[in-house]
Amino acid sequence: MALETKSEAKSHGGIQGVYTHQSEACHCPMTFAVFVPPHKDGQKLPVLWYLSGLTCTHANVMEKGEYRRAAVDHGVIIVCPDTSPRGEGVADEPGNWKLGCGAGFYVDATEAPWAPHYSMYSYVTEELPALIAANFPADMARQSVFGHSMGGHGALICALKNPGRYKSCSAFAPIASPMTADWSKPALAAYLGSDEKSWRGHDAVALIKDGARLPELLVDQGTADSFLNDGLRPWLLEDACKAAGIPLTLRMQEGYDHSYYFISSFMADHIGWHAERLMR
Amino acid sequence: MALETKSEAKSHGGIQGVYTHQSEACHCPMTFAVFVPPHKDGQKLPVLWYLSGLTCTHANVMEKGEYRRAAVDHGVIIVCPDTSPRGEGVADEPGNWKLGCGAGFYVDATEAPWAPHYSMYSYVTEELPALIAANFPADMARQSVFGHSMGGHGALICALKNPGRYKSCSAFAPIASPMTADWSKPALAAYLGSDEKSWRGHDAVALIKDGARLPELLVDQGTADSFLNDGLRPWLLEDACKAAGIPLTLRMQEGYDHSYYFISSFMADHIGWHAERLMR
Repeated sequence: MALETKSEAKSHGGIQGVYTHQSEACHCPMTFAVFVPPHKDGQKLPVLWYLSGLTCTHANVMEKGEYRRAAVDHGVIIVCPDTSPRGEGVADEPGNWKLGCGAGFYVDATEAPWAPHYSMYSYVTEELPALIAANFPADMARQSVFGHSMGGHGALICALKNPGRYKSCSAFAPIASPMTADWSKPALAAYLGSDEKSWRGHDAVALIKDGARLPELLVDQGTADSFLNDGLRPWLLEDACKAAGIPLTLRMQEGYDHSYYFISSFMADHIGWHAERLMR
Repeated sequence: MALETKSEAKSHGGIQGVYTHQSEACHCPMTFAVFVPPHKDGQKLPVLWYLSGLTCTHANVMEKGEYRRAAVDHGVIIVCPDTSPRGEGVADEPGNWKLGCGAGFYVDATEAPWAPHYSMYSYVTEELPALIAANFPADMARQSVFGHSMGGHGALICALKNPGRYKSCSAFAPIASPMTADWSKPALAAYLGSDEKSWRGHDAVALIKDGARLPELLVDQGTADSFLNDGLRPWLLEDACKAAGIPLTLRMQEGYDHSYYFISSFMADHIGWHAERLMR
């Protein structure tokens, strides 16, 4: 599991790095960002996974997410994967920002032409964690996950499908139910085939209805988010959590949109919330 | 002085806006960013000017500077101008990042082909302040200025040339003496002509030697900054301040480079430092 360092810069007392490796899950080189706060020699820090939204790479949240101050305050490593495989030979639909590169949806594709490379679920839950464990001062017994939009969906399904793996899960403006949103349905159909039954295993609302559980959940959603009513629909998550008895804190944030100006506003809040649960 | 709103987004409780206007100083449309923290109706807030470095627009620090949290904490408006005129008919040397677009050096050019548009000194000290005063809840009696690299130089000369205008001045990795750095000398020659005497009015070290004074000065400089020895040379500023009796706090920040990872690490520090002086 060789790792190539693309860049490392000191920031807020820690190291913001960008790394690439040849992914076995995605069969292509993959790039990701890791921020390691200052720590004692030999000390291992908890790991907070941040999954990004449509069109993003690892770089967007690294540059605009404003997570480093809070990560240092709480002593938490932040890992930011890419949102899809990329590069030569990787299937794509240029011009369609909801499918292909930048739109992996954190599923393992089963259908042509996507299946050979689009295994983002395995990548973020299996391959990359092993790489992080081997190469960074990470205490893998203490992991949490959060994300934005498509990455909020990713965080939810990663946590719902792996009970006990993550100490906590939160999301900024997540796609609550990608299998029922016009916005994301075509991607699930492309990656997973036309049988909607196979989609249920990658849809937070369906997973909860089918019995998956989380100890609790924190979601921030801007009221001025232009994707609120079509793509995101947090009320579906609210209904499902209520029916399942999952304590959901859904904060409708007045006047906020879908951008990093929204994410960064509540980033420190979320990191602090996760840190509490990671340190228990 | 008509202002066009390009975008406004709520962030950290305030409004991050981007605006354009037809500049009289630069004879072209100019774009700038303003962050206004939450405030009471009718309340006027102090204004902190952030001048950016080579190759930047208003957008770089707006996206990567991490200034909004601290601006809200201290109730300070942050204004981020562009670094040069741009667009059709504006002279440029594409491929040369140290001259022309993105490299206005905060001077009023006197030479062809630059003179018609490159009046960034007048723009940031006269035209834009008037526009800010007319369009934002700004208390123009309380202004401070800071900046990075070329914008650190800009902040220094704006403060040195306008005693009493700014309550305080600080810089991240400023170009201490552009007229003696190989890095920036060609730009001053292009904008101001070959007579080095005319350069002295736009060089912090020369201005101090020639009698300009500041009440005090805060400078952060990364020790791993690849431009430290050629372009920046803070020791020249240190010597000049010492000789002139200007209290300079020069903090050599171990391991930091020239990037926004460095700037953002000390952004809250600088804003807090300015806020103290703006509130006196």
